[in-house]
Amino acid sequence: MNGVPPRDAPERSPRHATSLFILNTGDGKGKSTAAFGMVLRALARNWRVAVVQFVKSGEWRTGEEAMCRKLGVDWWSTGDGFTWDSENIDETQAIARAGWEHARSTIGAGEHELVVLDEVTYPIAWGWITLEDVVRTIRERPPIVNVVATGRDAPSDLVELADTATEMVNLHHAFDAGIGARRGIDY
Amino acid sequence: MNGVPPRDAPERSPRHATSLFILNTGDGKGKSTAAFGMVLRALARNWRVAVVQFVKSGEWRTGEEAMCRKLGVDWWSTGDGFTWDSENIDETQAIARAGWEHARSTIGAGEHELVVLDEVTYPIAWGWITLEDVVRTIRERPPIVNVVATGRDAPSDLVELADTATEMVNLHHAFDAGIGARRGIDY
Repeated sequence: MNGVPPRDAPERSPRHATSLFILNTGDGKGKSTAAFGMVLRALARNWRVAVVQFVKSGEWRTGEEAMCRKLGVDWWSTGDGFTWDSENIDETQAIARAGWEHARSTIGAGEHELVVLDEVTYPIAWGWITLEDVVRTIRERPPIVNVVATGRDAPSDLVELADTATEMVNLHHAFDAGIGARRGIDY
Repeated sequence: MNGVPPRDAPERSPRHATSLFILNTGDGKGKSTAAFGMVLRALARNWRVAVVQFVKSGEWRTGEEAMCRKLGVDWWSTGDGFTWDSENIDETQAIARAGWEHARSTIGAGEHELVVLDEVTYPIAWGWITLEDVVRTIRERPPIVNVVATGRDAPSDLVELADTATEMVNLHHAFDAGIGARRGIDY
């Protein structure tokens, strides 16, 4: 910005996409939070919304889960907690794979206008689900299904596929200053 | 990520902040959307939430506004539309200033656990409200009031003040490919 408010409207875009694939990646905050902001917006339009969480535990009663369930979101928590809490890494893998099977069938069914794949980049990075399968599922989705994917270090194939890819960059973070995660803000 | 799931828990943080100031800036998508994700999380905790919008018009019936009002958010739309639609720039300035007066008194009253200053960087950049006043109001806020501010090109004083400052960077954007803003996704 140059200190002068814009006076010219931007050019109108020539076409409307049927649906979009949105990717939020990077090391900073706001990837999942922005996805939940999109959920709020979608619900306001009476869209059917599904969320699949790949890492956060279903045992965690997060604020977003409670609120989304209350608002009618189809919510699937696939993780059984962060991996460092897992006593059986094979079981964790199996649960992540089951979550992906659920996500793939949810997208394919075409019964939701918005499907959120929260933290899906991690099971990809860990080799638990294949990037090829995720890319194919999103590319070949029914036209009405918008998809939002979140997580650090998104593979370039996923970035290329996205209609909008945003990197959240940490300018600085409360955790760096010794401030713990806070209920209502971070979860 | 190196392809190996982490097995060690991160160190616990030693203290809890009373409240936080979160800043979402940068040219990419997700700044306001992440703020509305935080609103969803705050509502789940039964926090009282206020939103002041500095640029988007109160005449726009956005999805987030409809949903937030329905969920009990105190919503103030200060803008009278984007500046290029304004027939009277002085009136636009006056409305932005009135919005800031409202925001300052809302923060100072200490009756909301979360106050969102959506797109507040623009009236600062245009010289309509002073950075010093915004910084002082946030720094001297009542201890219970968490503040989230959004907008491009946040001044460094605001970045420094933030407990968490995130830059949303556009990796690529649907608008670049000629896809227009879509109801339910972008508004």
